[in-house]
Amino acid sequence: MTGRRHYRPRYLQVAEDLRDEILRGDLAAGDPLPGEPVLAERYHLSRTSVRDAIKLLRDWGLVRAEPGRGTRVRTQRQRVRRTPERYQWEKDRVRLPEHERRTAGATEKDTGLKVDDLEFHAEYSTVEAGADLAERFQVPVGTRLLHRVYWTSSVKEGAALTLARSWLVYDVAAANPDLLDAANEPWPGGTQHQLHTLGIEVDHVIDEITARPPQPDEAHILDIGPGVSVLVLRKTSVDTEGRVAEVAETVLPGDRTELVYTTRLERWSG
Amino acid sequence: MTGRRHYRPRYLQVAEDLRDEILRGDLAAGDPLPGEPVLAERYHLSRTSVRDAIKLLRDWGLVRAEPGRGTRVRTQRQRVRRTPERYQWEKDRVRLPEHERRTAGATEKDTGLKVDDLEFHAEYSTVEAGADLAERFQVPVGTRLLHRVYWTSSVKEGAALTLARSWLVYDVAAANPDLLDAANEPWPGGTQHQLHTLGIEVDHVIDEITARPPQPDEAHILDIGPGVSVLVLRKTSVDTEGRVAEVAETVLPGDRTELVYTTRLERWSG
Repeated sequence: MTGRRHYRPRYLQVAEDLRDEILRGDLAAGDPLPGEPVLAERYHLSRTSVRDAIKLLRDWGLVRAEPGRGTRVRTQRQRVRRTPERYQWEKDRVRLPEHERRTAGATEKDTGLKVDDLEFHAEYSTVEAGADLAERFQVPVGTRLLHRVYWTSSVKEGAALTLARSWLVYDVAAANPDLLDAANEPWPGGTQHQLHTLGIEVDHVIDEITARPPQPDEAHILDIGPGVSVLVLRKTSVDTEGRVAEVAETVLPGDRTELVYTTRLERWSG
Repeated sequence: MTGRRHYRPRYLQVAEDLRDEILRGDLAAGDPLPGEPVLAERYHLSRTSVRDAIKLLRDWGLVRAEPGRGTRVRTQRQRVRRTPERYQWEKDRVRLPEHERRTAGATEKDTGLKVDDLEFHAEYSTVEAGADLAERFQVPVGTRLLHRVYWTSSVKEGAALTLARSWLVYDVAAANPDLLDAANEPWPGGTQHQLHTLGIEVDHVIDEITARPPQPDEAHILDIGPGVSVLVLRKTSVDTEGRVAEVAETVLPGDRTELVYTTRLERWSG
């Protein structure tokens, strides 16, 4: 921000400056951060403000205080660039043979990682629809839902890249008993293939995006610091009959995830 | 989250419960929050945990401690639901007569408010392109850019709903000197009309979305509490020649903004 009305503390500018150096790679993983006196002189800043800047870098998860070794740059986390092309990509894979469907899922597509770089976790349970999900699925409050929790971890980082919850109407899913057992995860071809086994074809997907601080359990699984926000992406898959087939909510770390949507406009006639 | 691995403190559940009551309107603006002893008994919780829950509601900006009146529910903030249809909508308006272009902008469209409910602010300055914007515009680092800061406030709330920064290549914009003067804002028809006066037609718009805690100046202008994250939407408008015509970055409060994108999938042949 520029302009006299905007209050921008100096320590924040310094923290952003150092952040840019880290993200550009000028300061590499394992490198020591310059000491407080050096930074104070470089930026003409008090030691207190330098400490505030370093605290912010720690909160952002970019540096870490290492006993006896000072403050060092942390290994930068895997970045995720997620575009809605993943939905058509998943749909196109539904009718591939199983051995091809098995080779990659949407997370591999978003991260550029291989199946072996990722560890997949799934937990299933049943829940009763509250007011919100009941309205979404157009079913009575209390209707039984299959509730699925997924997280995909980078083997190298030992922390989750994304955390997702998904709901299906239980009685709909139960038409294929294989869909009720988490042991069948990761399901080759993912949710769109699962729905296909029920005779359901997805027509469109609605992404609704908000942001908030992580909840403690999310911060733990995603291994993110207190200065990191999460993106919450609620995805509603609507079938060719106009019925909601699946609702999912994915929590993504805001500091390393980019959601990218391209809107093409109609051309003016020449 | 469910499952034994997920640590979910009780005070958080209570805070979410009360948040839902407020958002549903069961607790209305100005209503007192039930007292600590009442909440402690209702939720079988210690007074300390109750206080933690109430602090969280304050951080979220949902309640406020009022001297001598206890903790009361705040007036709920204007919600913004933003879809990419706004881009085609803006484009279609470019060729309308000025008096029609003047009647509404995209913020009115997103909020359902009228022009008179909103107060518009614009500040212009010039900046030199850093590495990031230079790459985006495909110009040398140091190229002069027109830097525009906008915020739109709800008259009723006295706080900004959104905060945006926008960059144009200065020498491109200067072909129409009217575009260099903030006094011409709000420009009827917005940026797409401004670009049209330069002979530029927008072909597609790329939205890149991340999330982070607000910076102090942003928290001040948007009047958001420390427990609220912001969505950062970087918008790149590409013209019919494939050149980047505008880069903009909009900061939106994550607790009352929903970005909505719909992806239509190809149908399987019957």
